[in-house]
Amino acid sequence: MMISPKLIGSSTARILAVDLSRHVGEEVVIEGWLHRKRVLKSVVFLILRDRSGLSQVVVGEPRAMAEAGALTEETVLRISGTVTENPQAPGGFEVTSPVVTSLSGRVAPPPFDLYRPTVPATLPTILDHAPVALRHPRLRAQHAISAASVAGFRACLDSLGFTEVHTPKVVASATESGANVFAIDWFGSDAYLAQSPQFFKQAMVGVFERVYETGPVFRAEPHDTARHLAQYTSLDVELGFITDHREVMAVLREVLAAMTASVRKRATEACTLLEVDLPEVPERIPEIHFADAQALLAQHTSEDPRGEPDLAPAHERFLSEWALREHGSDFLFVTGYPMVKRPFYTHPEPGREAHSNSFDLLFRGLELVTGGQRLHRYDDYLAALAERGESPETYMGYLAAFRHGMPPHGGFALGLERWTARLTGADNIRRTTLFPRDLHRLTP
Amino acid sequence: MMISPKLIGSSTARILAVDLSRHVGEEVVIEGWLHRKRVLKSVVFLILRDRSGLSQVVVGEPRAMAEAGALTEETVLRISGTVTENPQAPGGFEVTSPVVTSLSGRVAPPPFDLYRPTVPATLPTILDHAPVALRHPRLRAQHAISAASVAGFRACLDSLGFTEVHTPKVVASATESGANVFAIDWFGSDAYLAQSPQFFKQAMVGVFERVYETGPVFRAEPHDTARHLAQYTSLDVELGFITDHREVMAVLREVLAAMTASVRKRATEACTLLEVDLPEVPERIPEIHFADAQALLAQHTSEDPRGEPDLAPAHERFLSEWALREHGSDFLFVTGYPMVKRPFYTHPEPGREAHSNSFDLLFRGLELVTGGQRLHRYDDYLAALAERGESPETYMGYLAAFRHGMPPHGGFALGLERWTARLTGADNIRRTTLFPRDLHRLTP
Repeated sequence: MMISPKLIGSSTARILAVDLSRHVGEEVVIEGWLHRKRVLKSVVFLILRDRSGLSQVVVGEPRAMAEAGALTEETVLRISGTVTENPQAPGGFEVTSPVVTSLSGRVAPPPFDLYRPTVPATLPTILDHAPVALRHPRLRAQHAISAASVAGFRACLDSLGFTEVHTPKVVASATESGANVFAIDWFGSDAYLAQSPQFFKQAMVGVFERVYETGPVFRAEPHDTARHLAQYTSLDVELGFITDHREVMAVLREVLAAMTASVRKRATEACTLLEVDLPEVPERIPEIHFADAQALLAQHTSEDPRGEPDLAPAHERFLSEWALREHGSDFLFVTGYPMVKRPFYTHPEPGREAHSNSFDLLFRGLELVTGGQRLHRYDDYLAALAERGESPETYMGYLAAFRHGMPPHGGFALGLERWTARLTGADNIRRTTLFPRDLHRLTP
Repeated sequence: MMISPKLIGSSTARILAVDLSRHVGEEVVIEGWLHRKRVLKSVVFLILRDRSGLSQVVVGEPRAMAEAGALTEETVLRISGTVTENPQAPGGFEVTSPVVTSLSGRVAPPPFDLYRPTVPATLPTILDHAPVALRHPRLRAQHAISAASVAGFRACLDSLGFTEVHTPKVVASATESGANVFAIDWFGSDAYLAQSPQFFKQAMVGVFERVYETGPVFRAEPHDTARHLAQYTSLDVELGFITDHREVMAVLREVLAAMTASVRKRATEACTLLEVDLPEVPERIPEIHFADAQALLAQHTSEDPRGEPDLAPAHERFLSEWALREHGSDFLFVTGYPMVKRPFYTHPEPGREAHSNSFDLLFRGLELVTGGQRLHRYDDYLAALAERGESPETYMGYLAAFRHGMPPHGGFALGLERWTARLTGADNIRRTTLFPRDLHRLTP
């Protein structure tokens, strides 16, 4: 065995851990991080980690054992050796007679053991050391599930005739309310980080009818909770030529089914590792009107929330449990939220104008998606703004789309990190965000 | 014909313009924008635009003609009628005996005629009125090509084992240089908009080996040119376990081929409309070393750029023409750029340390992609920063990845708007950006 700090350009094709079984008896090259080292009396085991999994390497020659024993975990190695069947090795195969080369040079030991089955570190430690901590298979798995989810989201919408858009993240005025925006110095002018692509995606319905965007949104969220971030990834959808919010809910149902199927298929190992209980997405997700939900809460709990304009987190949990019990569903649509709690562009419920053609989707006790039908007539926008005492001047660019003809339309926004957290049972949304940004955290 | 401002919930399924031919003789419902109206003596033609194309509607009944004649272009209409074959109609089919319903209510005429074959407006007018202007088929087509490009980008990388990531757009310090950053008030602290996901994508090589991101990046670009924007969409790729930059170039070649193929397949009509001449991506894109490129320029032009650390735009054009003439290629890799013009994380060229293992990709006369191999050893980073007089303290979070073992790696970044502009021959990158942001523009 030779440990050399130099990478020698080699034409030998590397194989991945997952492919060892197809090369029994052959000389192969594997490359990866030294995940774990086990020094026994007569042998040193090196466990090498690559993007596909782990390989066991057996070092038995005395001088090589000494060199292997001196290696620090997380050193990046190239190892050539012979693939040997061994029922006792993890996966049933191992690499013997290895020649080991270091690609990374000397490294410092990781801030905590990355090879432990559970993560031996607190959340702040994980976040402080994210560039290294995320290599832990359990932490990495969260993001494999996240990536698979987004792939399913896009594939579904592509198949339904949607077009992907990329909209500005810097705007001249706050999108939905004056609060919780980050101010930017824009070449000496005032500007703000976009809280959502809402106005842009609506305008783009006028161009492509059906659009989606997967991008960052920003909330200067002063609450330091397990479910709020200052930047998160919003999966945004908007579509035109609907009758009402029910067509939006139908699209959302397809999207959820596709995201779940994609996670099952593309992140199989991550799901196994995290023991993810993937939900069944019913053909028709059960729904309950806000007023009926309040009546249900009054009837079955010690509280009477009637008259309140919104649902408390405890109410959402109760309703989710009710949906699971009564309908066998992890998902529940609550429709008809009071207009007073919804943004000015919300379409009222015909014949019941204090309520709206909007919905929240609850998933295992938590609000995951908000959506609904929007106003689409210019005059209705002017009236809605006047009613809230807002000037149309502030919204000129946005209103242009409606002045020049927009169809009935609606859409929804789904927070990616929140979705992944609910799927994996993560207790904090920061566990499903690569490098979270919040009130207290701007690094790494 | 009845023009009603009310949308009556109808279960009649709408069909798209593109599907008219499959419903000859049937009663159908089409919905869309009134693209154009032609009032003749004995007939009024309504041309309806939906996401699939245009439908001709023939109004012949006197009272209906009067009502149709009064409609403003861009009104959103639902039209039921009979599909009739007519070789003289655009596409060979038209809708006769129509009943027309307005879905949008009254609208204002568009700022310029959206039905003209070419766009009858200057760029500032287009940008000021973007929410409506983008409905013009030629302007919309740019973004259909853009969406198809990104789909091809992702599909290619997914097939090569890459994982998508979502990284912070707000950072504590400037990414690549102190200049051209936007400052943010972050809960009372100083922060900056990310100029690139460079540091994050490198760290993520330590987690997933191969990663990509499609997201916004921000440059406080003080130059008001046709090829610079303050926000653009960066298609970022990074991969580990490479020998040198050539493997990165090989991945880029695959990506370009996939993007081109996706545009051909998914944006066929947009390409036809804009007469896009899609490039052939050679199996092996020709490449020339920076030093050889300078020698070529000295030999064949009146200039002698030898000693200059970079190529001027005129040089890039000359080299692109040379590649087309000599190699029949719209693409050319220029490799080995001088280290002095590249960021500190750039890997030097072994044996020729003033040059780097980096490249630019020229596409039809313009630099489209920058990429290369990065340093991967911690000590090399410390030395590179010391040489530039920079403190490692500033880069602690970033350097953590290297302290704990990183493989040889590299990557590239491709500007989506610039790619689309080169494909379509757009004279200004603002034509391939939905709602551009620059020195002077923060709305709509």
